[in-house]
Amino acid sequence: MADKIFRVNMTDLTTTIEDVPENWAGLGGRGLTSTIVGAEVVPTCHPLGEKNKLVIAPGLLSGTIAANSGRLSIGAKSPLTGTIKESNAGGTAAQLLARAGCKALIIEGLPKKECWYSIALTPDSLTISEESELGGKGNFAVLKTLESRSEARQAVLTIGQAGEMKLASANISIKDPDGNLRSSGRGGLGAVMGSKKIKFITVEPGDGKVAIANPDKFTAANRVFAKALMDHPITAGLGQFGTNVLVNIVNEAGGLPTRNFTEGQFDGHEAISGETMHDIIVERDGTPKHNCHAGCVIQCSQIYNDADKKKLTAGFEYESIWAMGADCCVDNLDHIAEADRIMDDIGIDTIETSVAMGVAMEAGVLEFGDGEGILKILQEDVTKGTGLGRIIGSGAGAVGRAYGVTRVPVVKNQSIPAYDPRAVKGMGITYATSTQGADHTMGYTVTANILGVGGNVDPLSKEGQIQLSRDLQIATAAIDSTGMCLFIAFAALDDEKCLPALVDMLNARFDIALTMDDVVALGQSILKTERAFNIAAGFTAADDRLPDFFYTEALPPHNVVFDFTDEEMATFWDF
Amino acid sequence: MADKIFRVNMTDLTTTIEDVPENWAGLGGRGLTSTIVGAEVVPTCHPLGEKNKLVIAPGLLSGTIAANSGRLSIGAKSPLTGTIKESNAGGTAAQLLARAGCKALIIEGLPKKECWYSIALTPDSLTISEESELGGKGNFAVLKTLESRSEARQAVLTIGQAGEMKLASANISIKDPDGNLRSSGRGGLGAVMGSKKIKFITVEPGDGKVAIANPDKFTAANRVFAKALMDHPITAGLGQFGTNVLVNIVNEAGGLPTRNFTEGQFDGHEAISGETMHDIIVERDGTPKHNCHAGCVIQCSQIYNDADKKKLTAGFEYESIWAMGADCCVDNLDHIAEADRIMDDIGIDTIETSVAMGVAMEAGVLEFGDGEGILKILQEDVTKGTGLGRIIGSGAGAVGRAYGVTRVPVVKNQSIPAYDPRAVKGMGITYATSTQGADHTMGYTVTANILGVGGNVDPLSKEGQIQLSRDLQIATAAIDSTGMCLFIAFAALDDEKCLPALVDMLNARFDIALTMDDVVALGQSILKTERAFNIAAGFTAADDRLPDFFYTEALPPHNVVFDFTDEEMATFWDF
Repeated sequence: MADKIFRVNMTDLTTTIEDVPENWAGLGGRGLTSTIVGAEVVPTCHPLGEKNKLVIAPGLLSGTIAANSGRLSIGAKSPLTGTIKESNAGGTAAQLLARAGCKALIIEGLPKKECWYSIALTPDSLTISEESELGGKGNFAVLKTLESRSEARQAVLTIGQAGEMKLASANISIKDPDGNLRSSGRGGLGAVMGSKKIKFITVEPGDGKVAIANPDKFTAANRVFAKALMDHPITAGLGQFGTNVLVNIVNEAGGLPTRNFTEGQFDGHEAISGETMHDIIVERDGTPKHNCHAGCVIQCSQIYNDADKKKLTAGFEYESIWAMGADCCVDNLDHIAEADRIMDDIGIDTIETSVAMGVAMEAGVLEFGDGEGILKILQEDVTKGTGLGRIIGSGAGAVGRAYGVTRVPVVKNQSIPAYDPRAVKGMGITYATSTQGADHTMGYTVTANILGVGGNVDPLSKEGQIQLSRDLQIATAAIDSTGMCLFIAFAALDDEKCLPALVDMLNARFDIALTMDDVVALGQSILKTERAFNIAAGFTAADDRLPDFFYTEALPPHNVVFDFTDEEMATFWDF
Repeated sequence: MADKIFRVNMTDLTTTIEDVPENWAGLGGRGLTSTIVGAEVVPTCHPLGEKNKLVIAPGLLSGTIAANSGRLSIGAKSPLTGTIKESNAGGTAAQLLARAGCKALIIEGLPKKECWYSIALTPDSLTISEESELGGKGNFAVLKTLESRSEARQAVLTIGQAGEMKLASANISIKDPDGNLRSSGRGGLGAVMGSKKIKFITVEPGDGKVAIANPDKFTAANRVFAKALMDHPITAGLGQFGTNVLVNIVNEAGGLPTRNFTEGQFDGHEAISGETMHDIIVERDGTPKHNCHAGCVIQCSQIYNDADKKKLTAGFEYESIWAMGADCCVDNLDHIAEADRIMDDIGIDTIETSVAMGVAMEAGVLEFGDGEGILKILQEDVTKGTGLGRIIGSGAGAVGRAYGVTRVPVVKNQSIPAYDPRAVKGMGITYATSTQGADHTMGYTVTANILGVGGNVDPLSKEGQIQLSRDLQIATAAIDSTGMCLFIAFAALDDEKCLPALVDMLNARFDIALTMDDVVALGQSILKTERAFNIAAGFTAADDRLPDFFYTEALPPHNVVFDFTDEEMATFWDF
């Protein structure tokens, strides 16, 4: 059975299952969500209004046996940034959507009635139902209730209270194989889902399988590909300590944003490091290695238990730990883990919310280091939607505006992640020029800037950074279309067999003859489609810059500023 | 003595009194503030950061005997809109600054120390002092304290708690001749003053006088000018009922935005009308006619007493009464007057704050019509800076973002004033294209759309609206440079002697030979200077449009939408 476009119209509560238009056939993941948003969403529309659409697409290889191919792309116009947005996550949804024959699920319109709905997708049906029980509930309650309702293996995409309140930092949570949550975290896509009054989406593939044109070639290529991943030392490190292995590395490099981006090193780094976390997990009988989707050979996720050896949180990432740790000066990993659990439950981006807390600390709302204060605000304010809760839940930019703070680390209103752009200058290029607001995953120059992957580019020098960021942003856009986890990039950059094997898998799956040049062209084309949307939405070169303070306040310990001119930045788009 | 530029640097706490650069010599008021902001402020800077400047300039005729010439222009990059901003107000400051020989007061930089300062300006001195007593106090306490400190006649510009908190709706309040307050209300200029830690500014002109090159010609021209003002029927109506005479007129026209811009007529219009207000004022021994600055021949201000015949508020304007009245469905004039008094005291824009309350009502924070609820939020939340208070105090756009509301009547994040753009289409053009965000005073097409002044242009038809708005925006930019109150426009549009007399006064004051064409060219030049700033700050044609709902939701009773395309709107700038 050929893949289909599944379309839900929430205005008249109808659904259709449509043939895939010819010009979308070669696209998947981010390439497809951005193409559909570009084609069907009016760029100047209100992100929470009837003209915005939520587009959900598995990658080109999702649902196959390809290693690490279980990422799902979700796109829309972002309520946080006002730009086009693609946010991808693991979990089971990408694979089950692909197996259900879903090329993309497009949700449009706004319902007239004041109630919550759910969407159920199977290979041959698409159903909208009123949902009277789960409105107001957190994500874990949603998962638990749905488990009790159906014994079928199903993927779940859900929003918590943050999405219901249409907070600009609300995420969409996706169930992983063991009932934990992964997040399409950035850009407030949960608010778009909430605006359409959809509490959750289930996917049941039945016995659907993804068609492979040339199975033998596919299997052979996957073997080469998986070996390249497993052989790379960084990927191995990720498996041992999780993404949080980066705390000590980035701290050592002087680029770990600390105390609301005023310092590049955190005194408490050891207490929150991946190494410490690993020891705690082992000591408390947690799970140090865990996969967020079937077929992952890296297993950077983990399950972190509390002191009583009960599960506290899962998928406990470097970004979340850095943001609530170093950036808020909290050196208590249990406080951070508890905050992570609450944020997963209410469905809110851990980066945006934690950076917002850092700005709130600067504003004097609470003290730096006050982990318990953070927990209280999350529980008493954000979850309940008080005024303060809504400010925090609207992101760091909103906190800055409400409290008149000027040191607000955002680009296009989205919080800058865990690499200070003054000390890791390539990341500054990525943050400023990305079509999606500040986002490390859009062009992860930490590779050559710090990790020595794909070459070495001095993080403190201007030289080579624009080229580095451009190459990585183009490659990332292509990778994000395959359903591949971005962590394949380490092997892809260092192992010459890796990317050709990935291209071989694409060719074997669809019986086509892509070359590496085609892949680069795809990445360029995606970036240009996204940029065209942003330009039509009103973005200009003036938005492709960092906040003033990065240019004027020197960051210890290197005492460096970000020193690219706007003119230099504009050359990013010369391709 | 030639006029000077008075410059305050808050970073190093120094002041200078400088000669006026040649290319600024012919400018005053808005023409000068926008030129200085355009020349000296980096368009991409943070509005509350050290690179923004607050520029205060009397008009070209301020300080003379010219009728109605007491308006003061204040400019900066706006924290509310991100655009260039000029907000003008009455009070005594324009005239006293002019008499002190101040062409413009420029305040730049940010102090390092955490304390409040005051600025004192005299013809030959400019002093920065630490202010230990008045931090945290409301505007009325500032005026009272300053009266007790000095017996000299002095102008006062001050910020209340809103400006101290750097709320994006904070205004700068200016003392009128009788110790009431007038406001540079729009665009959050009080937050810019607050960011520079200036609590108040005093101006003492000593026996300074404004030089007039040709006094006889000046006096003769002023006589013609003042007669034109007094003879016009609209100006006379403003004297009798204040600006609030418009409630019944605009309600009758079906363009009185009601219940957060969902209807064009308000059932309770009679209760809040200018006619009712006049009767109440007379009955309570208030003052129905009052001038906001010396030399005003219109006297549209008034003093409104409470039921015990004690002064409740002054300068009680149509915009404030419409916004808290019709837009929030409050039909109790005493509640609105009490809210007006509180907003004057804490120094916050009545339009922005009231429209924000309307959006909060739509969000369910309080009920439509709940005047007491509004008072409680103003006193308990905005004044004290709670989370909710900061959201409301950051304006209607902020409320919309925090609560996920899509019916948010703002352009460039500034609230749309008291004429629904669907039923008064010329105003829609002005709101959308204005260089300053939605602002009725930028191009007041209500003249020809509703009042039959300067011709008649059907408010419900598209025909002629762009031309009308363009002509008025150009003329307004020029008028805003003279120090003239915008209410001279009625006579200027209908009485052929009025504008030539104004030009005669300019020529007699400076011994120059301006023509009417020169005045139009000045207006055009100011708009282009302002637009160039905005473009460099990142604004595009995509920002020159109204929110989606004006295009899709029909407004009763005429059941009309706003139907200009973005392409049509862009033709506004064809000059």
